[in-house]
Amino acid sequence: MAGNSFGEFFRITTFGESHGIGIGVVIDGCPSGISLCEDDFVTEMTRRRPGPDFFSTARREDDRVEILSGVFEGRTTGAPITLFIRNRDARSQPYEILREVFRPGHADYTYYKRYGCFDFKGGGRASARETASRVAAGVVARKVFEPFAISVVAYTLELGGIRAVNIDPGVIHTNPFRCPDTRVAAQMEEVVLKAKKDGDSVGGIVEIRVTGCPAGLGEPVFDKLDADLAKAVMSVGAVKGVEIGAGFEAARLRGSQNNDPITPKGFVTNHAGGILGGISNGDDIVVRVAVKPIPSIEREQETVDRKRRSARLRLSGRFDVTAVPRIVPVLEAMVVLVLADHRLRFKGQRAEEMQEHSGTHDMRYGV
Amino acid sequence: MAGNSFGEFFRITTFGESHGIGIGVVIDGCPSGISLCEDDFVTEMTRRRPGPDFFSTARREDDRVEILSGVFEGRTTGAPITLFIRNRDARSQPYEILREVFRPGHADYTYYKRYGCFDFKGGGRASARETASRVAAGVVARKVFEPFAISVVAYTLELGGIRAVNIDPGVIHTNPFRCPDTRVAAQMEEVVLKAKKDGDSVGGIVEIRVTGCPAGLGEPVFDKLDADLAKAVMSVGAVKGVEIGAGFEAARLRGSQNNDPITPKGFVTNHAGGILGGISNGDDIVVRVAVKPIPSIEREQETVDRKRRSARLRLSGRFDVTAVPRIVPVLEAMVVLVLADHRLRFKGQRAEEMQEHSGTHDMRYGV
Amino acid sequence: MAGNSFGEFFRITTFGESHGIGIGVVIDGCPSGISLCEDDFVTEMTRRRPGPDFFSTARREDDRVEILSGVFEGRTTGAPITLFIRNRDARSQPYEILREVFRPGHADYTYYKRYGCFDFKGGGRASARETASRVAAGVVARKVFEPFAISVVAYTLELGGIRAVNIDPGVIHTNPFRCPDTRVAAQMEEVVLKAKKDGDSVGGIVEIRVTGCPAGLGEPVFDKLDADLAKAVMSVGAVKGVEIGAGFEAARLRGSQNNDPITPKGFVTNHAGGILGGISNGDDIVVRVAVKPIPSIEREQETVDRKRRSARLRLSGRFDVTAVPRIVPVLEAMVVLVLADHRLRFKGQRAEEMQEHSGTHDMRYGV
Amino acid sequence: MAGNSFGEFFRITTFGESHGIGIGVVIDGCPSGISLCEDDFVTEMTRRRPGPDFFSTARREDDRVEILSGVFEGRTTGAPITLFIRNRDARSQPYEILREVFRPGHADYTYYKRYGCFDFKGGGRASARETASRVAAGVVARKVFEPFAISVVAYTLELGGIRAVNIDPGVIHTNPFRCPDTRVAAQMEEVVLKAKKDGDSVGGIVEIRVTGCPAGLGEPVFDKLDADLAKAVMSVGAVKGVEIGAGFEAARLRGSQNNDPITPKGFVTNHAGGILGGISNGDDIVVRVAVKPIPSIEREQETVDRKRRSARLRLSGRFDVTAVPRIVPVLEAMVVLVLADHRLRFKGQRAEEMQEHSGTHDMRYGV
Repeated sequence: MAGNSFGEFFRITTFGESHGIGIGVVIDGCPSGISLCEDDFVTEMTRRRPGPDFFSTARREDDRVEILSGVFEGRTTGAPITLFIRNRDARSQPYEILREVFRPGHADYTYYKRYGCFDFKGGGRASARETASRVAAGVVARKVFEPFAISVVAYTLELGGIRAVNIDPGVIHTNPFRCPDTRVAAQMEEVVLKAKKDGDSVGGIVEIRVTGCPAGLGEPVFDKLDADLAKAVMSVGAVKGVEIGAGFEAARLRGSQNNDPITPKGFVTNHAGGILGGISNGDDIVVRVAVKPIPSIEREQETVDRKRRSARLRLSGRFDVTAVPRIVPVLEAMVVLVLADHRLRFKGQRAEEMQEHSGTHDMRYGV
Repeated sequence: MAGNSFGEFFRITTFGESHGIGIGVVIDGCPSGISLCEDDFVTEMTRRRPGPDFFSTARREDDRVEILSGVFEGRTTGAPITLFIRNRDARSQPYEILREVFRPGHADYTYYKRYGCFDFKGGGRASARETASRVAAGVVARKVFEPFAISVVAYTLELGGIRAVNIDPGVIHTNPFRCPDTRVAAQMEEVVLKAKKDGDSVGGIVEIRVTGCPAGLGEPVFDKLDADLAKAVMSVGAVKGVEIGAGFEAARLRGSQNNDPITPKGFVTNHAGGILGGISNGDDIVVRVAVKPIPSIEREQETVDRKRRSARLRLSGRFDVTAVPRIVPVLEAMVVLVLADHRLRFKGQRAEEMQEHSGTHDMRYGV
Repeated sequence: MAGNSFGEFFRITTFGESHGIGIGVVIDGCPSGISLCEDDFVTEMTRRRPGPDFFSTARREDDRVEILSGVFEGRTTGAPITLFIRNRDARSQPYEILREVFRPGHADYTYYKRYGCFDFKGGGRASARETASRVAAGVVARKVFEPFAISVVAYTLELGGIRAVNIDPGVIHTNPFRCPDTRVAAQMEEVVLKAKKDGDSVGGIVEIRVTGCPAGLGEPVFDKLDADLAKAVMSVGAVKGVEIGAGFEAARLRGSQNNDPITPKGFVTNHAGGILGGISNGDDIVVRVAVKPIPSIEREQETVDRKRRSARLRLSGRFDVTAVPRIVPVLEAMVVLVLADHRLRFKGQRAEEMQEHSGTHDMRYGV
Repeated sequence: MAGNSFGEFFRITTFGESHGIGIGVVIDGCPSGISLCEDDFVTEMTRRRPGPDFFSTARREDDRVEILSGVFEGRTTGAPITLFIRNRDARSQPYEILREVFRPGHADYTYYKRYGCFDFKGGGRASARETASRVAAGVVARKVFEPFAISVVAYTLELGGIRAVNIDPGVIHTNPFRCPDTRVAAQMEEVVLKAKKDGDSVGGIVEIRVTGCPAGLGEPVFDKLDADLAKAVMSVGAVKGVEIGAGFEAARLRGSQNNDPITPKGFVTNHAGGILGGISNGDDIVVRVAVKPIPSIEREQETVDRKRRSARLRLSGRFDVTAVPRIVPVLEAMVVLVLADHRLRFKGQRAEEMQEHSGTHDMRYGV
């Protein structure tokens, strides 16, 4: 109810603040019998963590995931899985000034209006740090898919106005921007360096592509697969837009252009982005997400304090120039979570499966 | 769970099919004491209904809303409110061919994969007719706001690639396209007539603007106001994209451009679209929605049948050239539903309100 | 949220008032492909309906169930199923006096405190008539089980202090009290006739027995099968207690007596009532429910009016002497609804099933 | 969905196993601005903890509650509150035998059927240790009430067949049985000592009494206050029955006896147990709960192993003779959680409150 849970059947609840003891997530509804250990999280957590690159924060986030519950002798038991990530480097001094003054573009003001108080140290729940919980949960959700060989890959399609042209998933990991186009990645570097020099920040667009998703996932009417995907990605801080398949471009096509012809071998085009009527059609699911520039910039800004008095704010410290590369694994995780949830929801609703099941699986005790 | 409900506290459940007995909605969680009668629905239902215009279907939808429950002596009682709209003109002949052949761009194929069956008469639940239930529910949701003087207005920002330039809410109702720019409306008419002549259809973009919304609505982390708005509008058939405030354009701005400065009189700009950190900031909430062209066109299309055999499909009948004007009140209703739900959710979470309340309102029986 | 829905996966939402247009239920989450027609409801609705017996109301409730949605060509489609039962004989005169005066033992006073208003005609939502919706939903829920041959049978174990001794399910339908002991049924008749003569009413105890339920249904920790059963039956008006298996008697046993020994052939005893740790163990599930005497009696009672002024109330009309026989099919339905919901929930949570499934069922489109 | 959450608006999710790292709970929906620190939990956690008495386990449970999130500068922020209790004394040797053999009366067998695996060390989620999370959450829930001066008190009404006669809340804490009748407490001691000598265990009945609860809490139809209370207490392991007010005795009363007359000063009697039509009536809420004897006994028992082979099991160790005194604070906590949830739910549903609110509270930013 209070908004810190997501998913119906594969349900996560995140908790924790940027500058508190740590952050974490409880996963309820994960099937039993899945192998899981703390090392499983290292790769994804490292992807989300700021690297040693010029464009990321100095803050060191070790982000080691502890499994507090739900795993017994190396396998999930069906009990809630709790993952916890301690905050190791939460220096509170730089933020003292923010006790009174609202940062433009941040949630300081709205949290204050909502709750009558505000955890000004690093933004509390509104901090990007919260997304580490989502990435950790995504690692577990991805395991629910393993039998299906579904691939979910995200990358930086556009950064600071520079857009990738040739999409090669193989090179995403070879540049710090997670750009699938090596040549364009070099141009992105220039844009970022320029913004950094100006004490400014840039935004961009992330594309997520799901390959191998079976047809039939999604629920009419409100829990359509695309509706849940839209909510999932829009719930990530800094996201301001989402589109599926042809997206906003579809608004400019005619029906005869936008309809994807169907042949015995599959769909000829994919303007639908893999979803029709809110249900996956077996083709690639394509989601694009607009990410705004980071609001923390090293320039003086006009704002007010808690008493609505005019104030000038100049933040100092080392800020990221862009959140886009770090948000890539977060958006991937959100898509994975939606798919895991709908996969489990799918199972309950076909009578024929139930009948098959009743014949082949003896749930009854006795002779 | 099965996806036909929306909202947590102000919760609607829609039901009914395009060519069945009728469609309807149960609203659970509406406060008691609100005046409500069947006439309250006439204006909005008429707005959603196809008019006598050249671009709409011949099908006559009277769309009279019956109140089946929840109102006693002219006021809501707190009990579930059931609204029912009978189908009056459900001719089934033209659809017989669709028993076997999937229509491109429609949900026929995905429903078949999801449920193992498909109500091919008019699309069943996937029909645009389902949205009448949402509009009816929106009428009730709007009443929850009345004490607040919140205004929610939607209009056709773009149609067939033609975009409104000067936004004048006063003229929305003066043209059949619900375009807020009279001059542009004339150009839209040309585009639509041309598409009609070609047996084709066009899409567009709807903008919804909320004025007067108090700051503080929305829940972190997953039930952010923008996340719920994104889900709400994306759950409407034909919607392929959504953006808040500057939206995809924000991805191309720098932080110094995108941040909205705050002054004692309010925000100087509104790139945020009225929402920061998932919570309303008191400024106008601005949502834009991409609507694809109607997939039913009078042109032969390539498809398959239930046995995946190649087929050619040529639909005949009188189809709408565009869904955009009719979707305007539907999207308005979805935004209203989200706001009503968050308004009620807000009330439960500030301790100070609780304390005030405990002093001023005697809930206890006795002397 | 507002409390008119029940179940997670097989979810029902009831609506309607005793003296309004009618009552009904929306079932969301029913699997597709199940045969369903209006005649399927006749038997159960007749069981709940007051018969021509001396102990039931004169009010004629035809209780014909209309299917408003969710069935296409004789089978469920996966869409929400709406069932509607019109009120045919809602005379409102006798209730006018209740506009001001609260009936003792009824919900008049508490609804007034809760909502600030009260549908005094027949009790509105608090009327026993609401249970007809539950019985109708139970008919659908029972169909979800058909592959499993689970039997759910309820009967009057005790009435007006007279308790059945020899339980013979075969005779339940042969007496108006739904007593499984013919000899005791005769004594019940005497008790009821005596109470009737006194213008009074009697309560009783209903026992529900589930045979053939597979082991493994139920969720720890809060959604235990017995916890959900307790809520289900306690949500029926007039119910004041519930026990599982040995129930309150277990509180007086020693562990060595209460533990049910397990053998290769099954459990030796069934003090557990078929549930251990909140999960079904394959043995018979046994639930007993205490039903209070009907509060509407033909005797003068002490009460107050809406202004808390002292009042004397003497209801006239023909009232039931007892609700117990009519509540029997209602409680049966509630148990069936819980089992259907947990059956569907079970399916999502065993990884092994998922893997089997991924191999045997091709959800993917393409070559 | 998977059953580890409870409550709608004040929602808790518990996690952790008896012999894992620890147990805990996430509370989502707690209002902001409430003072909370780790010392607040000491009293209640100590009450639940086994004391130095002869009838409790040797296991030392320090049960120190750590606040992992949701509190900033000593007050709740509206963010999820996470409470964690480390397991300090989890010796695993004695349980190795239970890897193969199911304990009668425990959840070993049913968990195995449900999940295909079983955390045999101390019962995993099925352990009584899980209830510590509930008690901790109850401490927070109780704070939500503070403005209302509601008192929730539980005690041992009956133990091993011995029932308290004179109820004096003042003496509950003066004897290890939490019996409100000092004279009867002495008899309870005898019964317990005798059972202990026999290597056996005893059950009992706990009564919970809520004083000062305002009228108007509870939701029709399914989320009745008594229905939610029934679920809440039945979800605690070892509970086999629940009754409200006169409970099972009401089934033997006539309507004229059971109806509580209403006078300008309040209800004359309280057979209703403070709840009418599922909504609190302002009188004391009275709940009685049947607790079965602890299934772990020092006597040889008949059972089977995972291959359904016959086995004899003789548990050794030091077991509690009864769970009743320790379950008292757990049941109190469950009742408190239900009341907190319904208190918050109440707030959203009266239009008049909304209107008052809109006038007195300026949520809008600007001039």
